[in-house]
Amino acid sequence: MIRFECDYTDGCAPQVMEALVRTNSLNTVGYGMDEFCARAKEKIKKICNAPDAEVHFAVGGTQANTIIISSVLRPYEGVVCCNSGHINVHETGAIEATGHKVMALPAVDGKLTAAALRELLAVPTNEHEVKAGMVYISHPTETGSLYSAKELEEIYAVCKENEIPLFVDGARLAYGLAAGKDVDLPFLASHCDVFYIGGTKCGALFGEAMVFTNPDLAYNIRHMIKRHGALLAKGRLLGVQFDALFTDGVYFELGSHAMALAEKVKKCLSECGVSVYYPSPSNQIFPIFENTVLDSLKEKYTFEHIASLGDKTAVRICTGWSTTEENVDMLIKDIKNTVK
Amino acid sequence: MIRFECDYTDGCAPQVMEALVRTNSLNTVGYGMDEFCARAKEKIKKICNAPDAEVHFAVGGTQANTIIISSVLRPYEGVVCCNSGHINVHETGAIEATGHKVMALPAVDGKLTAAALRELLAVPTNEHEVKAGMVYISHPTETGSLYSAKELEEIYAVCKENEIPLFVDGARLAYGLAAGKDVDLPFLASHCDVFYIGGTKCGALFGEAMVFTNPDLAYNIRHMIKRHGALLAKGRLLGVQFDALFTDGVYFELGSHAMALAEKVKKCLSECGVSVYYPSPSNQIFPIFENTVLDSLKEKYTFEHIASLGDKTAVRICTGWSTTEENVDMLIKDIKNTVK
Amino acid sequence: MIRFECDYTDGCAPQVMEALVRTNSLNTVGYGMDEFCARAKEKIKKICNAPDAEVHFAVGGTQANTIIISSVLRPYEGVVCCNSGHINVHETGAIEATGHKVMALPAVDGKLTAAALRELLAVPTNEHEVKAGMVYISHPTETGSLYSAKELEEIYAVCKENEIPLFVDGARLAYGLAAGKDVDLPFLASHCDVFYIGGTKCGALFGEAMVFTNPDLAYNIRHMIKRHGALLAKGRLLGVQFDALFTDGVYFELGSHAMALAEKVKKCLSECGVSVYYPSPSNQIFPIFENTVLDSLKEKYTFEHIASLGDKTAVRICTGWSTTEENVDMLIKDIKNTVK
Amino acid sequence: MIRFECDYTDGCAPQVMEALVRTNSLNTVGYGMDEFCARAKEKIKKICNAPDAEVHFAVGGTQANTIIISSVLRPYEGVVCCNSGHINVHETGAIEATGHKVMALPAVDGKLTAAALRELLAVPTNEHEVKAGMVYISHPTETGSLYSAKELEEIYAVCKENEIPLFVDGARLAYGLAAGKDVDLPFLASHCDVFYIGGTKCGALFGEAMVFTNPDLAYNIRHMIKRHGALLAKGRLLGVQFDALFTDGVYFELGSHAMALAEKVKKCLSECGVSVYYPSPSNQIFPIFENTVLDSLKEKYTFEHIASLGDKTAVRICTGWSTTEENVDMLIKDIKNTVK
Repeated sequence: MIRFECDYTDGCAPQVMEALVRTNSLNTVGYGMDEFCARAKEKIKKICNAPDAEVHFAVGGTQANTIIISSVLRPYEGVVCCNSGHINVHETGAIEATGHKVMALPAVDGKLTAAALRELLAVPTNEHEVKAGMVYISHPTETGSLYSAKELEEIYAVCKENEIPLFVDGARLAYGLAAGKDVDLPFLASHCDVFYIGGTKCGALFGEAMVFTNPDLAYNIRHMIKRHGALLAKGRLLGVQFDALFTDGVYFELGSHAMALAEKVKKCLSECGVSVYYPSPSNQIFPIFENTVLDSLKEKYTFEHIASLGDKTAVRICTGWSTTEENVDMLIKDIKNTVK
Repeated sequence: MIRFECDYTDGCAPQVMEALVRTNSLNTVGYGMDEFCARAKEKIKKICNAPDAEVHFAVGGTQANTIIISSVLRPYEGVVCCNSGHINVHETGAIEATGHKVMALPAVDGKLTAAALRELLAVPTNEHEVKAGMVYISHPTETGSLYSAKELEEIYAVCKENEIPLFVDGARLAYGLAAGKDVDLPFLASHCDVFYIGGTKCGALFGEAMVFTNPDLAYNIRHMIKRHGALLAKGRLLGVQFDALFTDGVYFELGSHAMALAEKVKKCLSECGVSVYYPSPSNQIFPIFENTVLDSLKEKYTFEHIASLGDKTAVRICTGWSTTEENVDMLIKDIKNTVK
Repeated sequence: MIRFECDYTDGCAPQVMEALVRTNSLNTVGYGMDEFCARAKEKIKKICNAPDAEVHFAVGGTQANTIIISSVLRPYEGVVCCNSGHINVHETGAIEATGHKVMALPAVDGKLTAAALRELLAVPTNEHEVKAGMVYISHPTETGSLYSAKELEEIYAVCKENEIPLFVDGARLAYGLAAGKDVDLPFLASHCDVFYIGGTKCGALFGEAMVFTNPDLAYNIRHMIKRHGALLAKGRLLGVQFDALFTDGVYFELGSHAMALAEKVKKCLSECGVSVYYPSPSNQIFPIFENTVLDSLKEKYTFEHIASLGDKTAVRICTGWSTTEENVDMLIKDIKNTVK
Repeated sequence: MIRFECDYTDGCAPQVMEALVRTNSLNTVGYGMDEFCARAKEKIKKICNAPDAEVHFAVGGTQANTIIISSVLRPYEGVVCCNSGHINVHETGAIEATGHKVMALPAVDGKLTAAALRELLAVPTNEHEVKAGMVYISHPTETGSLYSAKELEEIYAVCKENEIPLFVDGARLAYGLAAGKDVDLPFLASHCDVFYIGGTKCGALFGEAMVFTNPDLAYNIRHMIKRHGALLAKGRLLGVQFDALFTDGVYFELGSHAMALAEKVKKCLSECGVSVYYPSPSNQIFPIFENTVLDSLKEKYTFEHIASLGDKTAVRICTGWSTTEENVDMLIKDIKNTVK
């Protein structure tokens, strides 16, 4: 089977594996206090143009979300997101497990809007209600959409007016950067208080780099990381991988590769008159296929099921850093032959 | 510097790295539902002689401890351990973070005793007190000691009398198995309700294999794993590693290698009249050096600081699967030359 | 000022105060193991026609909700309610504080619908999502509406099909019973797994009687009550009060008194052409007044602010067990004089 | 039976009941924003000589402990107490339920010592360990002992050196003040950051007055109170009671009454050669009776069981604000007649 259901079906990018093999027999101190982590952090701060940021690593996205959110919130505070936000729907209550409410607002195109956020924060609250203490968005979002620079600016402005920190989940950031016209790393870093650069879905074996552009939010963060079981004993593994990803532009190339292939698929769908369930400018594609077409395609390919729509079905097709042009071309050919 | 402070200074065993490289570009389903995990689980059940067990993987030890303990306990229950237990002293309150008290009993030689446990459980409790709901021990313990088969039998008998599950943390199990005379995997599996086989400190890049010999305790455990941010997206990485570790006896060889070198160091210390802070039959060694001796050794080697004792200092020396005989021989020579 | 903003502006019903005074100097055992609690529990079980139920007391509603919900749910489970449910909006995250998600469905007339519940539970979930583990409704609801016997039957049927317990919050149950045509205590008791009979808002100084019609849900519940700081030292105070409330039909009379006065107010509003923000068959009334009218009324009366609607405002008027006919008649007269 | 097992066997002091009855039919705003609460708070601040303090009420002691501790601590911090501390042994893990470790040090005479505290805080910690974030003591302690002014000064000095707030649980403060030579309310208020004045065990029906002498610790405390289900709807009940207790010295008289009777009992025990299990200068007395003596006394009186000691048994006798001299004289006579 050729897998298109997600962007974490493979191991890691060759450059990352090469670095892991090369450093495997080296002797270093544990828990991320090593030189590889130090070097990766410096590279990330430089490329984000955020010299005062603090960078820390986590093994996965749920860990990063939980650590950041539960570290910032006071006990009676909640985190605001849109209702399709990953922390609201796909983390088995990991945020609530730390005692905090996820305050979900209606999504527009998978995104939180500055207007909805402003409206929520304008309502006075009292001690009978959860207080909004952080705003969470992801870029790209769960449905592949992207915030424009203007949208980010507006959301961040509302956060600042209300003195609430903004956190951007960048699990698929490589694809968002490659797809987006106007949001790059320095722009992102200067328009939120903390974000993370996804490794797991973007070329690493695993790992996310949490960038606290507001370093006050990182106060005693290593205690929080440990308490959540996220302080990797061989922490250098994270440093080695992010060092490799941010050497010679690997991270950006991986993103561009996936986006080029995603565009080919989208073009094919458009030409074949296949509509989409969610419009997505990034590497996740949500076509609605006739069930007969889908059954035929599924003999050779795997997709993620999104929604059953009578005699049609919406699925997710992901391209990723590891997707081959050969496989995409084959898929396109098969779609063209099946959809008539 | 030559590092002896712990057993997680290197990457992974060559057999593990070879397997990771070999499988790197394969396409698999995520979250541990792949064939590598399936195969590793089968191997583990077979070698433990526990065909009805359920096996699940976690990235690290704190995760494994937190998931297992918080899944089993009712809200008002606590977990019993000895006061030097890892969950009591070195996890930044990760167990308490899930709402549960760690009920610490006095350790004897770093171990929980059946007598102390029986005494605790004999006292009737009421609704004003935390109820003991699980017993936690580690093998080897935090100070390198080992439970004999008889000790394990006695503790498990007390647990069964009181209908409280027994959990054995095996973060350093490879070394415990190599050092112990009478506790092997099938014995361990049949004398507790759940345990984990440590990978991180025993040859893997990372990872622990949780073995629920009482499969009832694994009810909906994948929900718990996800909720704690421990469901690795590329879950196959854990399967690939444990598959390699339990092929051709690699795991046992790695343990034996470390123990052979540990014995050389212990023999040297004994011959030089260096006493130890904790007696340890396993791969952790706790010599008490004159400060002048230590200062000299520290020019070339790293150790973990254990205790300041006036003009002497207790440190920890660990051998591990990656320790070389060459480095151990050099250390021995230097100890002999420095301690007069 | 004459207070109409809520139904807890006074102390307690004379019968309750008389009982508290009469028993004040008696000597009893603590923590609710006394004869008054025993007697009150028996009366409640009898009047609910639920001989196998277990009854326990809590001081307040948030306590009762938190204890019941967190005792029943497994860590990865959430509680389903409608989005205007009290636990979702007015308890400062008390449920989330115990680690559980409140899964809010759209309300219809302030109520959860069997259809929405069935739809939610029909969607298969996996380990990435919170599992629904309990259903919460209140009767009356936050906006004064009531479940009909048929609606309760339908919701309970969906719960049973899905093997999920149903919990009914009865903070204002006296008023719901008096207002409802077809739901009485035996009907309620036989159409849910656990509910509570509100005292705080219905004639007691404080206190709620939790009735576990499914006694399995009360397993070790006293541990849970204590752990949440809700095991009153002088637990008899709760027994004394509920004993008084369920002697000679006091509880039902208090409800009927309030409802008769509420009907007078509603009739007046209707006659004056004042529309309501939420239709409510119970003791909470939500008129929409012209701001000028409201300003005038507020010189003499207090109401709870509900919503600003331009030159109109929605407020809440509550009648309660302690509301006097004299005050209601005065209010009616003033409304008639002000609204022209 | 005549009950001596605890100091919460009765209702409330006549002055308190009189105030509750007198104010019962008054109409006030809810949740403690009423004039009775305001007046009680002012009286408490004045009598504590703490004009800048913030005063808030809770219904019971476990609530007060949980709210204060969980409000102050950061997630990875724990609260230090002695191993016999109430929060460590008699609250069913209520502190751990909020995610925090109770860090227990060995008690000396039921008390935490400045020396043990200083020693603990002198050990450097890192991110693998729980950080001490608050110190908890009770006055009187669980075993009836009292801190001298000098001991309090020393403990508070250690806290200040380490910038860790000190919290004093005063569940039985009336008795501690009456028994102690040199600790009065102004001294206590100026030697800790927050404490509470116990009502439940000292003349109220229920209720504790939390006094934040460091008002920064009370930041958004009403959110915390609500979140823990401790914001009493008819909050005025707490104001009315504390207003009565701090009018005309009632609180102090109740304490003195109990202490005078306790001294009579202690004198009798001493004269009869009955030794005690814990020495106690306050209203809790811990005699060790021959089992035959105890059996005889138990026909008429109730005591709390403390420890079985072969053919002897240690019990607790409490005098309280409601204990009558008549009953104490009868008990004394019976002890004298039984112990020969």
